[in-house]
Amino acid sequence: FHPGSGTVDHPVFVHNPHLEEMKDDILYHFGLGTGTHNLPAMFGDVKFVCVGGSPWRMKSFTEYIAAELRMEDPKSEYPNICAGTDRYAMYKVGPVLSVSHGMGIPSIAIMLHELIKLLHHAHCTDVTIVRIGTSGGIGLQPGTVVVTKQSMDATFLPKFEQVILGKTVVRNTDLDPSLAEELLQCSKKLNQFETVIGNTMCTLDFYEGQARLDGAFCSYTEKDKQDYLNKASEAGVCNIEMESSVFAAMCKLSGLRAAVVCVTLLDRLNGDQLNNSQDVLHTYQQRPQILVGYYIKEQLKKMSRS
Amino acid sequence: FHPGSGTVDHPVFVHNPHLEEMKDDILYHFGLGTGTHNLPAMFGDVKFVCVGGSPWRMKSFTEYIAAELRMEDPKSEYPNICAGTDRYAMYKVGPVLSVSHGMGIPSIAIMLHELIKLLHHAHCTDVTIVRIGTSGGIGLQPGTVVVTKQSMDATFLPKFEQVILGKTVVRNTDLDPSLAEELLQCSKKLNQFETVIGNTMCTLDFYEGQARLDGAFCSYTEKDKQDYLNKASEAGVCNIEMESSVFAAMCKLSGLRAAVVCVTLLDRLNGDQLNNSQDVLHTYQQRPQILVGYYIKEQLKKMSRS
Repeated sequence: FHPGSGTVDHPVFVHNPHLEEMKDDILYHFGLGTGTHNLPAMFGDVKFVCVGGSPWRMKSFTEYIAAELRMEDPKSEYPNICAGTDRYAMYKVGPVLSVSHGMGIPSIAIMLHELIKLLHHAHCTDVTIVRIGTSGGIGLQPGTVVVTKQSMDATFLPKFEQVILGKTVVRNTDLDPSLAEELLQCSKKLNQFETVIGNTMCTLDFYEGQARLDGAFCSYTEKDKQDYLNKASEAGVCNIEMESSVFAAMCKLSGLRAAVVCVTLLDRLNGDQLNNSQDVLHTYQQRPQILVGYYIKEQLKKMSRS
Repeated sequence: FHPGSGTVDHPVFVHNPHLEEMKDDILYHFGLGTGTHNLPAMFGDVKFVCVGGSPWRMKSFTEYIAAELRMEDPKSEYPNICAGTDRYAMYKVGPVLSVSHGMGIPSIAIMLHELIKLLHHAHCTDVTIVRIGTSGGIGLQPGTVVVTKQSMDATFLPKFEQVILGKTVVRNTDLDPSLAEELLQCSKKLNQFETVIGNTMCTLDFYEGQARLDGAFCSYTEKDKQDYLNKASEAGVCNIEMESSVFAAMCKLSGLRAAVVCVTLLDRLNGDQLNNSQDVLHTYQQRPQILVGYYIKEQLKKMSRS
């Protein structure tokens, strides 16, 4: 079941008639394939997928979740399932898969194409996927966690533009509202840090694309920057990152229940540089992991009772 | 000097009046900064920068170039200068800097903003930068090396669209024609593999964005794909990758002499999947390294004579 939504199995959809005609499917950027790996045996039990930009953070999430679920083996390492490539890192503990996606829309899109095919080939059902990431906040205390309602583009419209054969196709960027609400309730029970639901702006660039004044190039003033960020805030934007739009669009198309949970590392209204200490930034980065770890533990308790 | 172009020093330009007002500059995604590192001492002698998607490949390039320049110390490891972060990897041997950039325009753009600032803060002059990468070819024997003339978008126009404060700014994507010609001549002298000069299409997606039939989603036919790739070929496109447009645009703005040298791993007119053996793909991937290594060696010989 999708937690709380009945007893019918929900598969992971691909929308590609050509896949059926292929003898093998090589998931090139994972170093995996249907001809070389038994994907149903390796991944058939996956119910939760957590993705994030940094391979180190996704390994540390796996160690954290193993301890939380009391599935850790103190003597064992968690091997990188994608050890044959350096494009992405992947770890698994029980029903929880953890995958890195690099930075930016193109990098996460490659990963998601191959992840969706992997879950499909493995016959996974009722999969929930969460991006746990970092972001710049707008008008929020640094360290606040934002659960995304809609992902917006740089003009504050809730859409993702996919170019196909040179033509632009517009895709929806809504995330699952009930999952967002469940995550917010988990944060209230945890009571360790502030969490809000809001819109997230997704950009193709970290410097000029996010109105930063500290890139190699900057042709606008401090006032231009503040005006732009204030307009974003009026459109309901709570934070800015670089992957949520294509993540929302692709997960929706494949029937995955999806959420974006990002901590804000700074308040962009007050600055651009990440000049907090590494310790403080590290503490902030753990918050999405703690929240999603708690959510997964609660869901697994419910599943074992049903 | 820029090799062969006179005796005046060419600095690396930033175009950002705000940088002068900043006390420190934190290059966050490198884990470096002006307040914590002596950038002129660490990087002041850099004359060549090679960038590529994969951190493993950029480390192996450093080992290769050290051997070629007879600067290798068989007992020493080449430490990752960005060891404090997992976003990018950076290695240096003599005047050659090697940096990974991940996959896609946003990922390489973050790296280039911080690299251009690094070279500027380090007072580097007369820097040549080359992207050594992999690509899908159109109508070329797999293993052919393509040196890019112009980087084109998915509608075959030679431009890069940068979104700034929600508005689109168009930037030029020409690469240095004399550098491309010098690289072609090096390949002729080497006589180990085929090299051509041509246009490179740069896309935001690897699957639907490059007309592949093997992604999680595909709404077009084999004929639609062939028609699109044939139109690309008529526009002079020899290969397709995911970073060249913003690389060309940013290097041009900062006065860096720049080239894109990518090997074609397959002919997209004949397929989509990378089903050659790992050994064959590995051999292909070494070709841009060999060509650029030869070029650097020749240039250093010229410099030492002048």
